[in-house]
Amino acid sequence: MTSMKSIAMQGGKIYESDIDLPTPGPGQVRVKSLACGICGSDLHITRHSSEVFGIYKKMGIMPQDADDQPEVRLGHEFCAEVDHYGPQTEGKFAIGSRVTCVPVLATMGGAGVGVTPGLHGAYSEYFIVDEALLLPVPDDLPAAAAAITEPLAVGLHAVNRATMHHNEVALVAGCGPIGLAAIAALKLQGVKHIVASDPQASKRDSAMEFGATHCVDPTQDDEVRIASELAAGNRVVIFECVGIHQLINGFIERAPAHSTLIITGIHTAESKVNFGYATVKEMDIRFSYYYSPEEFAESLENIVEGKIDWQAMCTGKVGIDGVSAAFDTLMKPNDHIKVIIEPWRSGELEPF
Amino acid sequence: MTSMKSIAMQGGKIYESDIDLPTPGPGQVRVKSLACGICGSDLHITRHSSEVFGIYKKMGIMPQDADDQPEVRLGHEFCAEVDHYGPQTEGKFAIGSRVTCVPVLATMGGAGVGVTPGLHGAYSEYFIVDEALLLPVPDDLPAAAAAITEPLAVGLHAVNRATMHHNEVALVAGCGPIGLAAIAALKLQGVKHIVASDPQASKRDSAMEFGATHCVDPTQDDEVRIASELAAGNRVVIFECVGIHQLINGFIERAPAHSTLIITGIHTAESKVNFGYATVKEMDIRFSYYYSPEEFAESLENIVEGKIDWQAMCTGKVGIDGVSAAFDTLMKPNDHIKVIIEPWRSGELEPF
Repeated sequence: MTSMKSIAMQGGKIYESDIDLPTPGPGQVRVKSLACGICGSDLHITRHSSEVFGIYKKMGIMPQDADDQPEVRLGHEFCAEVDHYGPQTEGKFAIGSRVTCVPVLATMGGAGVGVTPGLHGAYSEYFIVDEALLLPVPDDLPAAAAAITEPLAVGLHAVNRATMHHNEVALVAGCGPIGLAAIAALKLQGVKHIVASDPQASKRDSAMEFGATHCVDPTQDDEVRIASELAAGNRVVIFECVGIHQLINGFIERAPAHSTLIITGIHTAESKVNFGYATVKEMDIRFSYYYSPEEFAESLENIVEGKIDWQAMCTGKVGIDGVSAAFDTLMKPNDHIKVIIEPWRSGELEPF
Repeated sequence: MTSMKSIAMQGGKIYESDIDLPTPGPGQVRVKSLACGICGSDLHITRHSSEVFGIYKKMGIMPQDADDQPEVRLGHEFCAEVDHYGPQTEGKFAIGSRVTCVPVLATMGGAGVGVTPGLHGAYSEYFIVDEALLLPVPDDLPAAAAAITEPLAVGLHAVNRATMHHNEVALVAGCGPIGLAAIAALKLQGVKHIVASDPQASKRDSAMEFGATHCVDPTQDDEVRIASELAAGNRVVIFECVGIHQLINGFIERAPAHSTLIITGIHTAESKVNFGYATVKEMDIRFSYYYSPEEFAESLENIVEGKIDWQAMCTGKVGIDGVSAAFDTLMKPNDHIKVIIEPWRSGELEPF
């Protein structure tokens, strides 16, 4: 076998194509993708390709003359199987072992698996990872469970960015995968009051299962007022896990004094904000995007130990030929939390 | 004497009028204003009265039906003389003693002296303070020196909000009184690299006198790049001490990864910001507005002990009948740092 099926995105379109099987370089391993989550950022980059890559170019992460609409091979939340070691590797795990890792290639200057143009992603049948970053996935853990590690690490990191005390109040706005991961991390850290806010009833139900102590429909009630009342003068930390930039100014206007706003959504369009409110209230606004390898390992450990109900997050699964249609479904209002791609098989989107 | 000269601001106009001498209530003291600084926020509230009071109303600090253009008796950076005690006071300091304090009336629910409509400010001959908050001013300390306490506390608090390590790099953008106060506090805290940025040469010279280690004209060089190079991977903390909201987005775009932006300027107009840059760089944006009574007392102590060259901050003085013209001067580009009003005398603006 010298070719494989691969999913790519360019100019807002998701498509399948046959490409050459990738060859691992020094320190690298080729792995077979067993399960890969569809991330909100995959939807965002598909919708707003020019915005995202415009920012990367302006920051010098991408060359100035690079295409604003490059082809990207998506997929960064994965469980995979060791297939072939490149040169200068130790063969740490036997061929056929199941692994996961942070989706970064230290061997390529920190390029992002499933994000950086030119790399392979875990939506494809095979892709490339660094041997040094691999973590073993226990035999009895389903591949989909290990694929949930990555969004859990994002939520854990967001919670760690807030350094909360038990008696402070968390308001988690948006109960998709990142919101639920934040709720799970808050519960594990012993935060007593966790207010979950989402306009969808199914998402609020999930939030309560993951550990929220209160839930609010923000179209009916003022979630910030409810959190502030619970706080009774203690700090309120608002976790923005929605990804709609128009909400940020509203949180700044309504937040109580000395509150912290953790932004986990990716906001690449221009926002209009009146910072006067943030000033008078001496707010902190902290942006959360990555996670550490330690936070990633802790998240996998939490799954392995049964501390987090990963099944409740997996609402759908799809084969490689159903990915494009699944994106169409996820771009419209829907009740999915996390859809898992199984690139080794075919099949339309179905309940998990 | 039952009336006094007072300076008020309404609808962008500064004017002098005779009003009744104020009567102190329970726990309060009437004091005679000896020296009062003109603050950047006094200029801002004069320029943008509707914006500021619109925010106060929306936050519930002022009644919803209050005037957007209320009359305000300015003056909150002061040294004063004890004149008359109200009921339920202890007479802690002899009549004629010199004092200063945080410009807040705890006896009136935390209303702001020189800000809250209906109160008296220190631009007037007499005003009201809380006995419990008074700090004594040593006999040999000039009144203008004690009046500098308040802006120094603002700068100290901004620096404390950043919790810097010695090897991190501070970039102080804007070298007016708050920028200089921040530089002085950074120097006292032992921060090794303090980059001062201001388009005016005279302000940059002052910054070097106050303890900056490097200075930059931001119209000629990229001050953020210079600070980032000095940091060599350590955190950069940018102190926005300019008060021009259009600069915030530029700092967010240019700041290095994991940097902190401390906003001390008052930005009451809508800003346009692309938060995508802050996300990818995991920035912290912290707003600094107040200070604690402890930070105020520490600032006075620093002046008394000669640790801060307060004289270098005082560039002008003016009598009560010259205040309106002084505002006209300060609203245009000028080389002043701090102008001290001496409400007990008449006289035009002159060098200190």
